Amino acid sequence: MNWAALEARGMQLTRDEFWHPERGGVLSAAVQIGGCSASFCSPEGLVVTNHHCGFGAVNALSTPQRNLLRDGFVARTRAEELPAPGMVVFVVRRIEDVTAKVHAAQAKAKSPLELTQITDQVIRELVAEGEKAPDTTCSVAAFLEGKEYHLYHRTRLTDVRLVYAPPRAVGEYGGEVDNWEWPRHTGDFTFFRAYAAPDGSPRAHHAENVPFRPQHHLRVAAEGVRENDLVLILGYPGRTERYLSSLAVADREAIYYPKRLDLLTRIIAVLEAQAKKGDAEQLAYASAIKSLANVQKNAAGMVFGLSHNATVERKRREEAAFRAWVEGDATRAVRHGKVLDELLALDELERKTTSKDLVLGLALSPRIAPFLRGIVDLVDTAARRDAGAELDERQARAVQDPALLADFDAVQRPILEILLDELRTLDGDDAVRGRDALAPRTREASTAVVQRLLEQTKLREPAARLALLRGGKAAIDASDDPLVVLARGLAAERAELGLRMETMEGRRLDVGRRWIAAQEEWRGASFYPDANSTLRVSIANVKGYAPRDGVRYTPHTTVAGLLRKHSGNEPFDAPQALRDAAAARRTSRFFDARLGDVPVCFLADGDTTGGNSGSPVVNGKGELVGLNFDRVFEGVAGDYGWNAERSRNVCVDLRYVLWHIESVMPAPALLEELLGAAR
Amino acid sequence: MNWAALEARGMQLTRDEFWHPERGGVLSAAVQIGGCSASFCSPEGLVVTNHHCGFGAVNALSTPQRNLLRDGFVARTRAEELPAPGMVVFVVRRIEDVTAKVHAAQAKAKSPLELTQITDQVIRELVAEGEKAPDTTCSVAAFLEGKEYHLYHRTRLTDVRLVYAPPRAVGEYGGEVDNWEWPRHTGDFTFFRAYAAPDGSPRAHHAENVPFRPQHHLRVAAEGVRENDLVLILGYPGRTERYLSSLAVADREAIYYPKRLDLLTRIIAVLEAQAKKGDAEQLAYASAIKSLANVQKNAAGMVFGLSHNATVERKRREEAAFRAWVEGDATRAVRHGKVLDELLALDELERKTTSKDLVLGLALSPRIAPFLRGIVDLVDTAARRDAGAELDERQARAVQDPALLADFDAVQRPILEILLDELRTLDGDDAVRGRDALAPRTREASTAVVQRLLEQTKLREPAARLALLRGGKAAIDASDDPLVVLARGLAAERAELGLRMETMEGRRLDVGRRWIAAQEEWRGASFYPDANSTLRVSIANVKGYAPRDGVRYTPHTTVAGLLRKHSGNEPFDAPQALRDAAAARRTSRFFDARLGDVPVCFLADGDTTGGNSGSPVVNGKGELVGLNFDRVFEGVAGDYGWNAERSRNVCVDLRYVLWHIESVMPAPALLEELLGAAR
Repeated sequence: MNWAALEARGMQLTRDEFWHPERGGVLSAAVQIGGCSASFCSPEGLVVTNHHCGFGAVNALSTPQRNLLRDGFVARTRAEELPAPGMVVFVVRRIEDVTAKVHAAQAKAKSPLELTQITDQVIRELVAEGEKAPDTTCSVAAFLEGKEYHLYHRTRLTDVRLVYAPPRAVGEYGGEVDNWEWPRHTGDFTFFRAYAAPDGSPRAHHAENVPFRPQHHLRVAAEGVRENDLVLILGYPGRTERYLSSLAVADREAIYYPKRLDLLTRIIAVLEAQAKKGDAEQLAYASAIKSLANVQKNAAGMVFGLSHNATVERKRREEAAFRAWVEGDATRAVRHGKVLDELLALDELERKTTSKDLVLGLALSPRIAPFLRGIVDLVDTAARRDAGAELDERQARAVQDPALLADFDAVQRPILEILLDELRTLDGDDAVRGRDALAPRTREASTAVVQRLLEQTKLREPAARLALLRGGKAAIDASDDPLVVLARGLAAERAELGLRMETMEGRRLDVGRRWIAAQEEWRGASFYPDANSTLRVSIANVKGYAPRDGVRYTPHTTVAGLLRKHSGNEPFDAPQALRDAAAARRTSRFFDARLGDVPVCFLADGDTTGGNSGSPVVNGKGELVGLNFDRVFEGVAGDYGWNAERSRNVCVDLRYVLWHIESVMPAPALLEELLGAAR
Repeated sequence: MNWAALEARGMQLTRDEFWHPERGGVLSAAVQIGGCSASFCSPEGLVVTNHHCGFGAVNALSTPQRNLLRDGFVARTRAEELPAPGMVVFVVRRIEDVTAKVHAAQAKAKSPLELTQITDQVIRELVAEGEKAPDTTCSVAAFLEGKEYHLYHRTRLTDVRLVYAPPRAVGEYGGEVDNWEWPRHTGDFTFFRAYAAPDGSPRAHHAENVPFRPQHHLRVAAEGVRENDLVLILGYPGRTERYLSSLAVADREAIYYPKRLDLLTRIIAVLEAQAKKGDAEQLAYASAIKSLANVQKNAAGMVFGLSHNATVERKRREEAAFRAWVEGDATRAVRHGKVLDELLALDELERKTTSKDLVLGLALSPRIAPFLRGIVDLVDTAARRDAGAELDERQARAVQDPALLADFDAVQRPILEILLDELRTLDGDDAVRGRDALAPRTREASTAVVQRLLEQTKLREPAARLALLRGGKAAIDASDDPLVVLARGLAAERAELGLRMETMEGRRLDVGRRWIAAQEEWRGASFYPDANSTLRVSIANVKGYAPRDGVRYTPHTTVAGLLRKHSGNEPFDAPQALRDAAAARRTSRFFDARLGDVPVCFLADGDTTGGNSGSPVVNGKGELVGLNFDRVFEGVAGDYGWNAERSRNVCVDLRYVLWHIESVMPAPALLEELLGAAR
């Protein structure tokens, strides 16, 4: 980081105050919890993250009699704090450079496939060695496509207790309707507390445990943020792919995301039709619809963003500039002369089977097509058996599981019509083994194809499936049941896909590493590595954007806007207590005179991705001003290239959090702890 | 107008240059055409108005072989200009104060009903007298609820020719989807030319006619407009009701508009279901759906705006302030002491039958429920006949018209279910005569009620209807056909509604006039009369607005935004010529460097309403900068009280018009005429 430039933008901390290898600093307050980011916000182990990150724990603690998810939860005293099942706080204790060890092992590889396998093996060993230390979780992160490898030693705090959760109607306000959107009015926050043994060492839940004392915690900003303020987003972003070639991005833009969007849209429509049939169906499919809809909207955002940001065109220009730079110097030409062509060759190879890989992924998903997946698994398992060998009880139960045929005619059959129609029409390098069972060359309607397949197969009978398992490899090879023919092909495709991916990974370890090294040299100061779930800082400003011509999104929303969305129906059903508190909010200390209201959410132009949920957002003094919880639709394609015009992350304003704790669902002790920490 | 204040805002004309009773001035360039506003924009009789105002004429000039509506039209020479059927340009020649004559006649009235009838009569006489002059159309406008009456003498120019119309895909770009919305990209403009005899006198189309030379025409602004610029909207706004009482507005907000919105939404759904069945159905119902959808969106805007602007609350505060002002002075108390209570009493009376009047209006509309309307007309007509009298041929044909039963089961029956269900459940003062035929007190489903009614009536047979007509009053009185029973009641309701409205009008002529006089005295400089289709000026600034929390609409749209909306499907199907021209637009003289594009539309905070379509929008020099064509959804309720935060009118930027004429569908002569006029 260029600290002088950062100071010019409003940074008031010294570099050491922000981060010091031994003493920690502001950055070290950022931790991980449940796949999300979080932060310590008091000296007493208080952890704040997103509501959606703590959702599972709050859900698990809820009963029909005491529905914490619906009603929210306040622990008035430490004694009332509830052990949160499954929640673990990870605190980075040490980062070890293991590059030499990994590279030494990799040097022995004789093929790309072997390179992947050896790398996986050495990483497993390093992790196992590190985890011999108590209460430690280790992981190895590759930087710069494997130029460096770091081993993260993280302390695992498993005694985590729920302190404060708003009602779901606050924490999820806007629900799926507002997901990936602005303007937003979601109170996406929840507080936990990490506990440890009295000597500070990690310990499972224990009556005598005491609050964990973190090396550093974030103070709460007294004054909030306003437009253009510097903010820093601290957290553990998952994966970006900023240095993909134009060819790889073009493939995603032209084939992968549009096809994914189309297929998911049609599959979701089937599930929604079923969910509309009644309350039981609604409950059965709500979660599947929600998670598929999230992926679908992501795909739509990619289709939108890659095209609107003209990412491919920019990549092509960059590649031309890179070539010119390489050719401009003889030693560079030697070092980097071939790497771009090698990279493009790999991408060319990979794109040959983009459609097949995508459709296989969906067709073999147990959540989307459980029957088909079950039969492919059955064929796979049976093919490894000798006829007459003793039956594995678990396998026998699995192949007869009635869940395989759940809602078959209403849900699975229409989904099969969609997916099998794709599988039988894929052609060339994308052509799928076993598709002969699907009459690939006829113009028959997909309903008829599936109808015939289901009429001809015996495998809808549990006894027939058991018999096939019993018959083992001989039975599988001999069968002319069309579903077995198809499943044999798909099982072979699945195995091959796995090998293909491992081989590709090995190739990329070689070419990708040289490509990134070339990028690093070429881009100089403007190069920064892809996210890889390790602790990052994104430097940003509070900033709106123009989603389209004639429209500007302003960077703050307010309680007035929340009330205006309130319809009394989910997902816009603000609790009565919130509406009552809102009536008196002008006198709240969290009222912002400039906005003329209590703020709810704000936008910043941070560079975030999945994994940044719950990230603390701090001001130039390192004080907590908000919690990151989403990105905007128009910026989703930022994973392939951040865009100044459109890449925005969405944060809940900490003043909304504090107003909620003071006036909506009061928790005086928590408020005192937070504001006391701010003094 | 406070001219000094106007100059401070950017007005560069003197008062006389803007408007002079004898010499005219900028304002006199504004004329009327086809119910819309328009303006002369060259010394050669060139008239510019909205595309949707000239739509009918362009439509009538189109054939399948030469589809001007679809392809647009350019007259390269005067000789190519096409006589535009039905288009008439009205130029105000003289305004005569006829208050004394009207008031003298009104003094003789002995009841409210008589007051209305006498007023209508004297106005008819004044108009007839005025129209004895050749090529003159007269009308009387009441000001201040009848405090003054002005007789407008307007010259009627009937030789109007089409000069230039963009393709419908430009002139209606965005169609119903964007109607009442921002951001907007509609090229809503069309040019006509008025012709007259060589001596300048009006004359019907004639080979030797020459372009009419207006007293004044608008020059075209060279530099365009930018945010915050002063603009003036000149035109003929229809009707506003700014001085309604809180009670009257509350009635519209709580009952009238929500019910209207609900009923129209359900009726439109029936029509849309039918229109989806095929191309013929699509064509048959497209126009009805379009016009009902426009009214529906207006009602939705009213429901939104009246509530969001808290108009009723503001009215209540004003009424309290008015009362305090009245009571603060003894002579005022004498003059105005009772008028507010009298007004509220009238509104109280009127609101008793709000629901009934609304539902009757829809149920008796020949466009919405032709069969029901036909039967009510039949009962009305027959009741005026003696049995045995000779049959009127026209009446006999009308009652047997097969169109009465058009699409009966698919369209009319479901609409009857909606409307008759309303009619039978209206209660108290809203109760409708004849509803006994509809089993008003049962909980029967509306489908069953209508089903029974249709089973029991004989009137679906043309012969039965003819027989009823033939039987005259006696047959009507004697009939126990349930549809006749219902229609007798509705006919009585219709007659009573007419009388009630005339009586109310008379009462308002009395009370309303005193109320407005009191308002004028109380409000002083901030009072201004309601719109009444006479020439008005709205003083405004180019300005965006915040439609909701977190969102700001910026005041200009651009060609980039138009292209981004382009999908190739109506209503977003920009012509190829436009897209080609757009590719080179950076070099156009109409490119705005600040916007970084050619502008398309802009917003201003003008106070406009229906009738302002086509209004010229001029800058502080009186030069044409745009054409008004719509208002935004959020500001529709402005008819009841203009709102600075949300009342915005939508204009097409004249630079878009000029760019279209220069680069998209070139018309060099027209361009020269417009820009020559600007020099």
